Amino acid sequence: MSAPPDAAAQQRAERAAAALFRRDRASQALGMSVAAVGPGRAEVHMRVREDMLNGHGACHGGFVFALADSAFAFACNSYNESTLAAAAQIDFLRAVPAGTELIAAAHELWRGGRSGLYEIEVRTAGGERVALFRGRSHRVAGSLTDEG
Amino acid sequence: MSAPPDAAAQQRAERAAAALFRRDRASQALGMSVAAVGPGRAEVHMRVREDMLNGHGACHGGFVFALADSAFAFACNSYNESTLAAAAQIDFLRAVPAGTELIAAAHELWRGGRSGLYEIEVRTAGGERVALFRGRSHRVAGSLTDEG
Amino acid sequence: MSAPPDAAAQQRAERAAAALFRRDRASQALGMSVAAVGPGRAEVHMRVREDMLNGHGACHGGFVFALADSAFAFACNSYNESTLAAAAQIDFLRAVPAGTELIAAAHELWRGGRSGLYEIEVRTAGGERVALFRGRSHRVAGSLTDEG
Amino acid sequence: MSAPPDAAAQQRAERAAAALFRRDRASQALGMSVAAVGPGRAEVHMRVREDMLNGHGACHGGFVFALADSAFAFACNSYNESTLAAAAQIDFLRAVPAGTELIAAAHELWRGGRSGLYEIEVRTAGGERVALFRGRSHRVAGSLTDEG
Repeated sequence: MSAPPDAAAQQRAERAAAALFRRDRASQALGMSVAAVGPGRAEVHMRVREDMLNGHGACHGGFVFALADSAFAFACNSYNESTLAAAAQIDFLRAVPAGTELIAAAHELWRGGRSGLYEIEVRTAGGERVALFRGRSHRVAGSLTDEG
Repeated sequence: MSAPPDAAAQQRAERAAAALFRRDRASQALGMSVAAVGPGRAEVHMRVREDMLNGHGACHGGFVFALADSAFAFACNSYNESTLAAAAQIDFLRAVPAGTELIAAAHELWRGGRSGLYEIEVRTAGGERVALFRGRSHRVAGSLTDEG
Repeated sequence: MSAPPDAAAQQRAERAAAALFRRDRASQALGMSVAAVGPGRAEVHMRVREDMLNGHGACHGGFVFALADSAFAFACNSYNESTLAAAAQIDFLRAVPAGTELIAAAHELWRGGRSGLYEIEVRTAGGERVALFRGRSHRVAGSLTDEG
Repeated sequence: MSAPPDAAAQQRAERAAAALFRRDRASQALGMSVAAVGPGRAEVHMRVREDMLNGHGACHGGFVFALADSAFAFACNSYNESTLAAAAQIDFLRAVPAGTELIAAAHELWRGGRSGLYEIEVRTAGGERVALFRGRSHRVAGSLTDEG
């Protein structure tokens, strides 16, 4: 007996995310956690640490980008087909201090051929928007887990 | 006796970069070094560490972005006027493994009003291009050092 | 007796759009029509003509961009404060032939200081997505109509 | 006797551009002319007409984009392999009035797999920069001429 299509897609997304996160030393080292994942979507959390602050005393844009980029990666790899970031555009809306809990929510806008477009919103736990990120993905050979 | 205009602009850029880097815990924690700075330009180096690798075994895009973003920050703050990143676009050209020495070279494309555009190329020490980054800056009130 | 706040904002958006469209020879010459407008949003229609086709036999990207850019302009000028496009990013999803009725729907993502971000979706009348456009606006001095 | 490699590549670029332009009703209707073309590069000229003005009395961004997009198309199709625009980013630096002669110069930044990145500068005949455009291309099946 196999799972219904939606449940199978959900399981595949969860297994791909688990496999990807297990090998993703960067996301682990930055203290990220994958709060939710599904076909074409993911939510990742990260708390801004003191060692993430830039010379203006706010979270360095690189770490805001890294959080959005990780949510993007979990979303675009959720079909268990190895997929890389080809390009991304980020708009920074608000500077955030150390201690802020950041949430990046990714959802798929479009897929065609080997390409995909994803929108990622980074907000504080309090709901203030911090950045908007749009990523273009490129599918390559291979999968994240053996299960297909 | 004051320095000739070009030398003064160069000194101002160096002082601003030194002040910014001193307070920039993120760039320090990532092992970056400012190899060169001048009016509207900067070069920053960073070595890819094991804890910067993503689930595909290559440097996480967030760290490539962070390096480019720091070079951008030193370049757009080189007039000793506090300037923030408003937006950025990055194209990823090549995946790089741990141990790679990365160089981000930023130069100014345009300034008008409070806005500016900067181009940052990220390459390996061997000269292979890794990413192209274009940043839009926004000048705010204040300066980096007291000297103006 | 004055209109309630929402009705006043809606009237202001409609008057600003009418004033802008009256002077906008480009949008008129391309056969665009403003189907709807409101505070921070606009919908503009355009039919792809034979003289809009590129060398691949599809609508030239410049005209898809122009349609999105006009919807962006009506949305970001809807507060009756003169506002210009500073930058835009477009992703082309589908080629469209002559005769296609295109709809560009713009809505505001964010405003802060003199800047704003708008998302514009271009789709066919049949609902197929043709392009995604994100625009950054910059407010300047002046208004579209005398009424404020 | 065949032409030396560089001359052959140049001839191929010229033939591909001629074939593309002949079928490109949009670029013709906008009064564009291809001033130069070569492997990975192209220069296209266009004069801003009265019917290209927007509601602010300046050249509508759609026509500035269209000019850059055409230069991009001639550059990325210069290998005589059918190539489409996948995405583009434009920064508008200066508003231009009717009568202005605009020049768009495209050059290749990178190619890998089926993708390419091109930089296009739009300037006035007097050398003032009007816009910076970066395009991502995607190669599809087919060629522009039969000669390969």
